[in-house]
Amino acid sequence: MEQLKEVIAQYVCLNGDDWRLLMDSFETQRIGRKTILVSENQTAKYLYFVSGGLLRAYHLEDGEEINTYFACDSQFITCYASFISQSPSFEYLEAMEDSLVHRVSYETLYALYEQSSQLEKIGRILAEKNYLCVIDRIYKMQTKNARERYLDFLISHEKKIVQRVPLHHIASYLGIAPQSLSRIRKEVPFS
Amino acid sequence: MEQLKEVIAQYVCLNGDDWRLLMDSFETQRIGRKTILVSENQTAKYLYFVSGGLLRAYHLEDGEEINTYFACDSQFITCYASFISQSPSFEYLEAMEDSLVHRVSYETLYALYEQSSQLEKIGRILAEKNYLCVIDRIYKMQTKNARERYLDFLISHEKKIVQRVPLHHIASYLGIAPQSLSRIRKEVPFS
Repeated sequence: MEQLKEVIAQYVCLNGDDWRLLMDSFETQRIGRKTILVSENQTAKYLYFVSGGLLRAYHLEDGEEINTYFACDSQFITCYASFISQSPSFEYLEAMEDSLVHRVSYETLYALYEQSSQLEKIGRILAEKNYLCVIDRIYKMQTKNARERYLDFLISHEKKIVQRVPLHHIASYLGIAPQSLSRIRKEVPFS
Repeated sequence: MEQLKEVIAQYVCLNGDDWRLLMDSFETQRIGRKTILVSENQTAKYLYFVSGGLLRAYHLEDGEEINTYFACDSQFITCYASFISQSPSFEYLEAMEDSLVHRVSYETLYALYEQSSQLEKIGRILAEKNYLCVIDRIYKMQTKNARERYLDFLISHEKKIVQRVPLHHIASYLGIAPQSLSRIRKEVPFS
C-alpha cells in the first residue's frame, strides 16, 4: 500500500484519521493475465490502483479493439465513465499481465468523499485528471500526425508501458495502422 | 443569482456560511453578442454561469470552427481544460447572443474548494459532469449515424439551444455536413 500512499500524498494533505479511513477502504487483489475485469454493458464497480503489472481500457469499434488507456505501476484505472455514473460501460477493462492491484468499490469511495474535504478533493483531482487525459488524446488525434503522436506517446508514458505494450495495442491507442507504426518505430532510434 | 443557487442546490447541501461564501464569489457581467471571452492560446480565467443568453465553446480544425459545447440559461461553461489546468486554451469561448452571466475566477473557486467538503464537492461534480459530457459526445460520434445524432441532440439539449443555435453550428457540433443536417431536419417533423 506504500505506493498508493505516495501517489495520494502528491494530491492531498491527509491527517492520521483520513489516512486510516482511506487505506482501510482498499482491498488487494491478484489478477491473472487476460482477466477481463469489466465487460461492455457491465457497470464498473471498482477503481483500481495498479501496484504491479499492466492493465488496459478499450472499446470495440466495428469489431476492432481500440485502446484508450494503459496503467502500470502506481497508476489508477477503471472504466471511468461507467464508474462515476454507475451505468453500463461501453468499454472493457483487462489485465495485460499478471497484476497486483488495490481496489476500492464505488460505494466505499463515494462514502469516503463525504468524510472530509481532503478526501473529497481526491475525487475532484481524479475527475479533472481524467478529463484532461481524454481531451489531450482527442486533441492530439486531431492535430498531430502519426509520427508526432508516437513521439509524444514515448515522452508521456511510463517506460514500462512503452516497452511492454505490444505494438498493435499502441497503434490502436494512437489511431495508427500497425504497419505504419512499425515503420515509424524503425525511424525513431531511441524507441 | 437565484438560478445559480437552484442549480448548486441540486448538487450539494450547503450551510448558511457556505452559501454566503459561494454567492459572494461570483460577479455579474453583461456580454455583448459575438464577444470572445477566451481565445486560442489564452488561459481561461473564469468559470461562467449563464443567467440569460447563449454561449458556445469551439476550436479550429483546418480553419473550420468545430463547436464542442453550448450553454444557455442556468448552465456552466468555460474552456474547461484550460481553466482546470490554467494552461493555454485550444478552444474559444464566445457569446452567441447578448448574455447575462455570473462568473467566478479560478483563484477564487479553488480557494472556495478548500473551505468545506461540500464546496469541494461542487468541483468534483463539475469535473465528473464535464468528463461524462465529452465521452458521451465522442462515443455518439463513433457509434451513431447522423440522423441518430441529431435526434439525440434534440432530446438532450435545452429547447432554447435547439431553436436558437443556427443550423450550421449544430451541424459542426454533431460532425454532420450542414446540407445533410438540413435534409435530416426536414424529415424530422418536431424539430
